[in-house]
Amino acid sequence: MGMVGGGRGAFIGAVHRMAACLDGKIELVAGCFSADPKKSQLSGKDLHLDPDRVYATFEEMAKAEAALPGDKRIDFVSIVTRNNTHFAIVKMFLEAGINVICDKPLCYDLNEARKLREIVRKCGKVFALTHNYTGYPMVKEAREMVRTGKLGTILKIVTEYPQGYATTALQGKTDGAISNWRMDPSVAGLSNCMGDIGTHAENLGRYITGLELEEICAELSTFVPGRPLDDDGNLLVRYKGGAKGILYASQISNGDENNLNIRIYGTKGALEWHQEDPNDLVFKAVDEPRRTYRRGNSYLSKAARENTRTPFAHPEGFIEAFANVYLAAAQAIKDEVTGRKPKKAYDFPNIDDGVIGMAFIEAAVNSAASKKKWTRFPKV
Amino acid sequence: MGMVGGGRGAFIGAVHRMAACLDGKIELVAGCFSADPKKSQLSGKDLHLDPDRVYATFEEMAKAEAALPGDKRIDFVSIVTRNNTHFAIVKMFLEAGINVICDKPLCYDLNEARKLREIVRKCGKVFALTHNYTGYPMVKEAREMVRTGKLGTILKIVTEYPQGYATTALQGKTDGAISNWRMDPSVAGLSNCMGDIGTHAENLGRYITGLELEEICAELSTFVPGRPLDDDGNLLVRYKGGAKGILYASQISNGDENNLNIRIYGTKGALEWHQEDPNDLVFKAVDEPRRTYRRGNSYLSKAARENTRTPFAHPEGFIEAFANVYLAAAQAIKDEVTGRKPKKAYDFPNIDDGVIGMAFIEAAVNSAASKKKWTRFPKV
Amino acid sequence: MGMVGGGRGAFIGAVHRMAACLDGKIELVAGCFSADPKKSQLSGKDLHLDPDRVYATFEEMAKAEAALPGDKRIDFVSIVTRNNTHFAIVKMFLEAGINVICDKPLCYDLNEARKLREIVRKCGKVFALTHNYTGYPMVKEAREMVRTGKLGTILKIVTEYPQGYATTALQGKTDGAISNWRMDPSVAGLSNCMGDIGTHAENLGRYITGLELEEICAELSTFVPGRPLDDDGNLLVRYKGGAKGILYASQISNGDENNLNIRIYGTKGALEWHQEDPNDLVFKAVDEPRRTYRRGNSYLSKAARENTRTPFAHPEGFIEAFANVYLAAAQAIKDEVTGRKPKKAYDFPNIDDGVIGMAFIEAAVNSAASKKKWTRFPKV
Amino acid sequence: MGMVGGGRGAFIGAVHRMAACLDGKIELVAGCFSADPKKSQLSGKDLHLDPDRVYATFEEMAKAEAALPGDKRIDFVSIVTRNNTHFAIVKMFLEAGINVICDKPLCYDLNEARKLREIVRKCGKVFALTHNYTGYPMVKEAREMVRTGKLGTILKIVTEYPQGYATTALQGKTDGAISNWRMDPSVAGLSNCMGDIGTHAENLGRYITGLELEEICAELSTFVPGRPLDDDGNLLVRYKGGAKGILYASQISNGDENNLNIRIYGTKGALEWHQEDPNDLVFKAVDEPRRTYRRGNSYLSKAARENTRTPFAHPEGFIEAFANVYLAAAQAIKDEVTGRKPKKAYDFPNIDDGVIGMAFIEAAVNSAASKKKWTRFPKV
Repeated sequence: MGMVGGGRGAFIGAVHRMAACLDGKIELVAGCFSADPKKSQLSGKDLHLDPDRVYATFEEMAKAEAALPGDKRIDFVSIVTRNNTHFAIVKMFLEAGINVICDKPLCYDLNEARKLREIVRKCGKVFALTHNYTGYPMVKEAREMVRTGKLGTILKIVTEYPQGYATTALQGKTDGAISNWRMDPSVAGLSNCMGDIGTHAENLGRYITGLELEEICAELSTFVPGRPLDDDGNLLVRYKGGAKGILYASQISNGDENNLNIRIYGTKGALEWHQEDPNDLVFKAVDEPRRTYRRGNSYLSKAARENTRTPFAHPEGFIEAFANVYLAAAQAIKDEVTGRKPKKAYDFPNIDDGVIGMAFIEAAVNSAASKKKWTRFPKV
Repeated sequence: MGMVGGGRGAFIGAVHRMAACLDGKIELVAGCFSADPKKSQLSGKDLHLDPDRVYATFEEMAKAEAALPGDKRIDFVSIVTRNNTHFAIVKMFLEAGINVICDKPLCYDLNEARKLREIVRKCGKVFALTHNYTGYPMVKEAREMVRTGKLGTILKIVTEYPQGYATTALQGKTDGAISNWRMDPSVAGLSNCMGDIGTHAENLGRYITGLELEEICAELSTFVPGRPLDDDGNLLVRYKGGAKGILYASQISNGDENNLNIRIYGTKGALEWHQEDPNDLVFKAVDEPRRTYRRGNSYLSKAARENTRTPFAHPEGFIEAFANVYLAAAQAIKDEVTGRKPKKAYDFPNIDDGVIGMAFIEAAVNSAASKKKWTRFPKV
Repeated sequence: MGMVGGGRGAFIGAVHRMAACLDGKIELVAGCFSADPKKSQLSGKDLHLDPDRVYATFEEMAKAEAALPGDKRIDFVSIVTRNNTHFAIVKMFLEAGINVICDKPLCYDLNEARKLREIVRKCGKVFALTHNYTGYPMVKEAREMVRTGKLGTILKIVTEYPQGYATTALQGKTDGAISNWRMDPSVAGLSNCMGDIGTHAENLGRYITGLELEEICAELSTFVPGRPLDDDGNLLVRYKGGAKGILYASQISNGDENNLNIRIYGTKGALEWHQEDPNDLVFKAVDEPRRTYRRGNSYLSKAARENTRTPFAHPEGFIEAFANVYLAAAQAIKDEVTGRKPKKAYDFPNIDDGVIGMAFIEAAVNSAASKKKWTRFPKV
Repeated sequence: MGMVGGGRGAFIGAVHRMAACLDGKIELVAGCFSADPKKSQLSGKDLHLDPDRVYATFEEMAKAEAALPGDKRIDFVSIVTRNNTHFAIVKMFLEAGINVICDKPLCYDLNEARKLREIVRKCGKVFALTHNYTGYPMVKEAREMVRTGKLGTILKIVTEYPQGYATTALQGKTDGAISNWRMDPSVAGLSNCMGDIGTHAENLGRYITGLELEEICAELSTFVPGRPLDDDGNLLVRYKGGAKGILYASQISNGDENNLNIRIYGTKGALEWHQEDPNDLVFKAVDEPRRTYRRGNSYLSKAARENTRTPFAHPEGFIEAFANVYLAAAQAIKDEVTGRKPKKAYDFPNIDDGVIGMAFIEAAVNSAASKKKWTRFPKV
């Protein structure tokens, strides 16, 4: 694999590399790690890369790699740059015939997203988006429970994603994390909080239940004075088919860390999953003892078992879940590279998830600006 | 004390009696336990009462007790009947000069509520409303933390009250609890779920933070076909002063039991309390270890310590919290009965809380019916 | 009921009174609350008792009450005094023909215990010992699970009872709780920690499983210099029939509050119960999701359901569990007083439990003093 | 790195490889993956190794690799074979001048262990033992808390390690995991359960507190008929300096998974850590709110922060902890290989830990066979 972005000091680039390499099946061999060519070279050196395959620009990288013989060139590129650069980079590599794994959100706005979808559809290459939380085995188990009818008809979904790290400005401290590009509308797009973590919340619910949003009613807030974008957002939501719910994301929820959680209530039973305790999945139903399903057990579904590396109660975490997204995408990429027909639909977030995510951001921002209660979720 | 309602088989009447008598300071001596005089007499017998003080009607009871000499008659009456009867009964006893402790919600509608407030103000008697969740010691601790500034300025409040007992109809079973009068608009009023438990959620947040609602945006739902009232409701809320939040209550959240919980986020820190785990209160703040405050410890505030009966980790629960409401009201009643000037403002929910609760129900129902996003909370 | 002990400031006396009176079926009408007659009278006044039935000595009380006609005199006496006084008081009341409910441990030593057993057997009166932890509904559920074979054959039992309150002396603070009579061998008997809480741990395991100790290997320790008795003890234990385990109790486990918990492992499954979270009972078995049984649900056994006052997730606690012991004993007492034949064996700790508890203390102290690994549990 | 053992289907070999390669600093380049040369080659192919560096025997591998020039040969070998083979393999590689990372327990018996220690001391090479649980950041935080005096003097340690997987034989199912070589005395050594997981428990307590065992009193049991070695063991323990405690390990604790946990009580406060919830560390002290320290926060010690890869609440687990042992050993190995003087004592389990572990097994087995209560821990 190659990488664009993720130079020295970048958190998410390092996660992508650990996730990709965890299983010993993917090797990083090329990259353009920074817009600054010097920094890119230094990062490449840190990573023990051949300097010839550390590039000054992503354009150069796409061309040079595409020109290599098939057994030498990268099978795919990981894109871990800022939102506003995704479009051009993804387009460049796909059109150069190179498969792409891209960090979320997909791009800068819904318009770009739709264009990217066209490109993906035309080029026949693999495109994966790292909505990593769907990589957790117990999230996959949740999806299987819904699919096999254990919950009955879904009535209500409550998805919460509070973080608190963006409150330090309120305490007179510097506000490292949020004061970066995520709060710059020309880089991040229409939203900070909804784009960064709201999209994860939307994706998680849809992944597990298959339900799509029909109407939303949003209030986005900026609690820290001077911020040009939202740092908190609360939504009432209606799903196609009649389920209702709440979806919120926040970065000013003081003391919360990365508290993504979801509760799904159906006519027959309900599920509860907490990202901070990812190895457990709770099933509850009226008049029954609660059941906690735990990762690594033989009673779990194939999907959960196949996305597990260690036995029960040898805890797996964030990197392993991330690696599951990589593994699934890598299988599709291997098929593509070797010209094989895919044996099945591999389980990773794709371009359609990316377009829906961008639509979600746009809908949330539009709803927040509207005096009407309900805003229809756009056709994607 | 006397009691109106709470005959054989009634859950909440028994809770009121246990709560009242727990500390050996209040004794039940009279009652009208049922609209059916025979059932009333039988219930009185169960409770070892003098048959002469078991009455056929509440009117008879109010008159007869008022006519007794001061050292014989009841100091107050507990009213544990259905919503639509509260107004007349409360009015009768207050105007007969007898103090009142009344179950929530206050009455049938906001109009009645305002009239009751007038009566309470005029008569100079004590009126207490059993929003029992405010009786928990750790809820009182939470209030003290907010008051003493440990949270800084409050930014966001998330109050959740999911129950699941009203889903059995969806499973082809009879649906005991909900199919009673709570779903009869002529008895319960405008709402089932918001009236029964939504008001508790509203009251809890206001009790702890002192913040009042300014605008709300509600969606009320009826998931079980054929029900004339709501069995679920989700609200976006705005508080006076700028805090925002979510408040929801549900009786179709399959497998949840009585899962009232609240999270309050401020500029300096946040609180989290769960009714199902009531002896703990979690304080969290960015860049600090989380602190769990536990009932019964000497490091707690006076308010928490004075509302505790057993040492730490000798768990206290629902009845004890309920008893704290009774104890506080009883102090005020004792002052009233003995003609003493109250030493301080005793800490129990009063007529104003009741009026706000009825306003909350009405506002939620109005907002749910409106296409506008925001509905102003009515002047009470 | 009457009470001996439990005057002003006594913790456990107040708990006994709340527990006895919670359900409105038992009334305190007489007492000797202190060895100091003045304090006794003042305590009686606090409790609204007729001064004629507040006695200066327990002997006087036993005689006077026994001389009253049957419908006036107390049906039973609660004894909540220090260990070394139990024997004489229990004997006095039983021989005066009055039923007894007594705080644990039973008495001063095993010798006294055996004599008391003789007296109980001869007199035909009811004797109950308040091992209150067996009153929790979910402990009763645990017993039913064992009885109905859900665990299979029991292999291992781990019972833990760490408290930390007796460490304040190590921090240069006064050490209120422990520096009282519990550390005085002439009052408490052979042991502080084993007597006070070790006996609860022993009783809990035996109550749930029915298994009796066969051999023990104990180390008792005194961590705080100057204490004449143990403040900590660890035991390896062997049960009749082959189960093995660990049992420990400690009062120097800093920061622990009242952390009694038990895990019972069988061939088919295992149970786990924590006193600090008493409304839950966890069942776990290899290759199965964990099941959490929660108080108040209809799927529980009759024993659990009959010992519950409030619906699920309206938490019940220590006082309610204590009250269950009182209620069960009161049923037996009612039978005795009215001359009815008991309908069944009521479920409360009795004189045999008390004798075994005293044997446990003696065996633990003997084993701790021995160089041999195993000490046989004495015949009781 | 190279690897001995860990061929197709081996669990722990795969964990070692993931742990070693997680950070992109270590690459597997050679191996002898099985005693069966064919299986070894196939495993090497799975791992994308150059077939020339996949060896038929470990002797061949040690010789061949040692003969390679310094920049080609492996810097160290990972040994993940059965206990009874460790001695010869470790010896071979060390004497060939190659650094070693070895799975625990160190070897077959204490005698071998002492010889290995001699060899390590003489050869000047790095030897690391993968007591992986010490790699968790919050375990390192615990050690720092003890070191910096936050607990005061340690009084008591309770270390528990129950697993339940070895009960399936009791349910008429095949008993995969335990029926392998771990129950074969000629392979595993004197003990199954104490050797496999008891040594982890011993190591964890010593790592955090620095306290060494002085005397132990053990009962080892074999609950499943026909097993030649123990499947459960309970110990009373005394540490040098006066601390006391309990240490137990079990594989017949039905329904438990990998439930290693430790509680350390000191005069000033106490710690509690649970391997199944490894990102949290609880500090508790009498009269103080409990504090939960969470991985990834800036308030943690340098040791904890340096052993962390992802931000708070992006959970890390077993593999990441394992990788921390590899990273620390790799730093020492890099110093050794490059001839640099180590900058500091790197934090990984070493030969002395291995010898103490073997002494622990022997002492536990001896004590279990003895009628004396206390067995002195052998001089190592």
